Amino acid sequence: MRALVLGPEGPAVVDRPEPDAAGEARIRLRLGGVCATDLELARGYMGFRGVLGHEWVGVVEDAPDPAWVGRRVVGEINCPCGACATCAADRPTHCPARTVLGILGRDGAFAERLSLPVANLHAVPDAVPDEAAVFVEPLAAACEILQQVHVRPSDRVVVLGTGRLGQLCARVLALAGAAVTAVGRNPATLGLLPEGIRRLPADRAAEAAGADVVVECTGAADGLALASGLVRPRGTLVLKTTVHDLGRTNPTQWVIDEVTIVGSRCGPFAPALRLLEAGLVDPRPLVSARLPLARGVEALARAAAPGAIKVLLEP
Amino acid sequence: MRALVLGPEGPAVVDRPEPDAAGEARIRLRLGGVCATDLELARGYMGFRGVLGHEWVGVVEDAPDPAWVGRRVVGEINCPCGACATCAADRPTHCPARTVLGILGRDGAFAERLSLPVANLHAVPDAVPDEAAVFVEPLAAACEILQQVHVRPSDRVVVLGTGRLGQLCARVLALAGAAVTAVGRNPATLGLLPEGIRRLPADRAAEAAGADVVVECTGAADGLALASGLVRPRGTLVLKTTVHDLGRTNPTQWVIDEVTIVGSRCGPFAPALRLLEAGLVDPRPLVSARLPLARGVEALARAAAPGAIKVLLEP
Repeated sequence: MRALVLGPEGPAVVDRPEPDAAGEARIRLRLGGVCATDLELARGYMGFRGVLGHEWVGVVEDAPDPAWVGRRVVGEINCPCGACATCAADRPTHCPARTVLGILGRDGAFAERLSLPVANLHAVPDAVPDEAAVFVEPLAAACEILQQVHVRPSDRVVVLGTGRLGQLCARVLALAGAAVTAVGRNPATLGLLPEGIRRLPADRAAEAAGADVVVECTGAADGLALASGLVRPRGTLVLKTTVHDLGRTNPTQWVIDEVTIVGSRCGPFAPALRLLEAGLVDPRPLVSARLPLARGVEALARAAAPGAIKVLLEP
Repeated sequence: MRALVLGPEGPAVVDRPEPDAAGEARIRLRLGGVCATDLELARGYMGFRGVLGHEWVGVVEDAPDPAWVGRRVVGEINCPCGACATCAADRPTHCPARTVLGILGRDGAFAERLSLPVANLHAVPDAVPDEAAVFVEPLAAACEILQQVHVRPSDRVVVLGTGRLGQLCARVLALAGAAVTAVGRNPATLGLLPEGIRRLPADRAAEAAGADVVVECTGAADGLALASGLVRPRGTLVLKTTVHDLGRTNPTQWVIDEVTIVGSRCGPFAPALRLLEAGLVDPRPLVSARLPLARGVEALARAAAPGAIKVLLEP
């Protein structure tokens, strides 16, 4: 089968055997989405080698439970061991023995076929088209903020970064009733934000200082320092950026201001599907390009270009 | 009056006019305590100039409300404006216009007389001797952890650093029923911890990994990185260290592990006084030396020596 594989020489579209999917569901890809993490992986983050891709929608072809066969699905990307103390403590996405689709020890979704445990699958409601369903994984990551932090309707929230994840975080936090300001460098991506979300160019970020909650989605090593300057004393700073390089920070200001910093990663799929089904979030305007899997390397390059949001891949 | 003053040339004991204390209480010092922050201030932290000292117990000599005169007191160190939005939001210790006793824009306590607003004062119960009352300010800072973070009786807690603040944090967290491990470099300070608190030398810190809550009290720029390695996924890291220099950190691990980091500073005096009155915390074994104010410069040097905990100053 055709697959976009990250090897020692970088990413390449190659021919590769189909996954054997023993004990798991085998899924035919319908659509994949390129994430900033894919670009970081290609730069060496996590030392990953294998098929890239963890944002996808597909159709089950084979499964241990035949009820899944033929269903259109999305799937949670963390595959926990189910037996360790972390799993027993109901933190399976943090299982130290986990594999993660297209990120850690497990081939990903940018291929004609992928495999995942049935326990990871969620059926996609008919009302949700593929072009929206492919956003479930990052939309769930945006919902994770509300799983972790009590965002009040009266809160002033700043989302720093208007790229792939920032766009979704701003939309989800606006649903909480909060006054959301999105700060971005690119006028084109700022322009994609729906009405009701304040748009602020990055060179005027200081105007948003004193926020109750700041969500750092810049994808840049200096994003944390910038976010630290915008949160009020005793406010909350949600960290979403994972980058390969280290940044310099001054934790003393966090102590003086008693700031809370919350690292935030993968989130729950069911609420994300509900938001899509209800039409409360429509991510489709965020699609910048749609390319065949054969042009996967080009898709990564286009996703890395300034102003690009979501680049989709179809088999 | 005699006072320990931080000037451009460093700290020195000098003769200085008594505070005029207009509209405030004028207090005669009975005992002061040297804090790590005093040592950081002497190294340039905050750019402070003036009388050092924010841990103290004294007797009120004059006050706008005569009911205070003659009473033995301790006092909260933050003096808010009372009129700004932060004060109105009930965060007076974060008032941007605040002065802070011996730290920011206000002379401190290492002098024969000091002054503070009456609103900052707390009467010391008769059962609490001066040698315990002088610990109220740092003990309140330890209580602040429980104001900010829900520490459960079943939690595994690591306190990193067995110096001035770490000793008090370990004692307060043990009162919550949590299993507390204190990690320290110095066998002498580890030996001061009461029964029931596990003592772990710093070169064996890795044995404490996987903690639900880690409290970073090392006073060192690399403490945050060490603490990050000991907290479990979705655990909480409480930051107490304020240092003058920057450290390098990798926030990506906080995102992957969804760690919460809580900056923690000054705390409530009333609970600290209750703990002392009830005898639930006895800080007196932490007194390393007691010197006259005239030897204040020597007191700072002795507080900076390895293994020293609390150095007291008496007028």
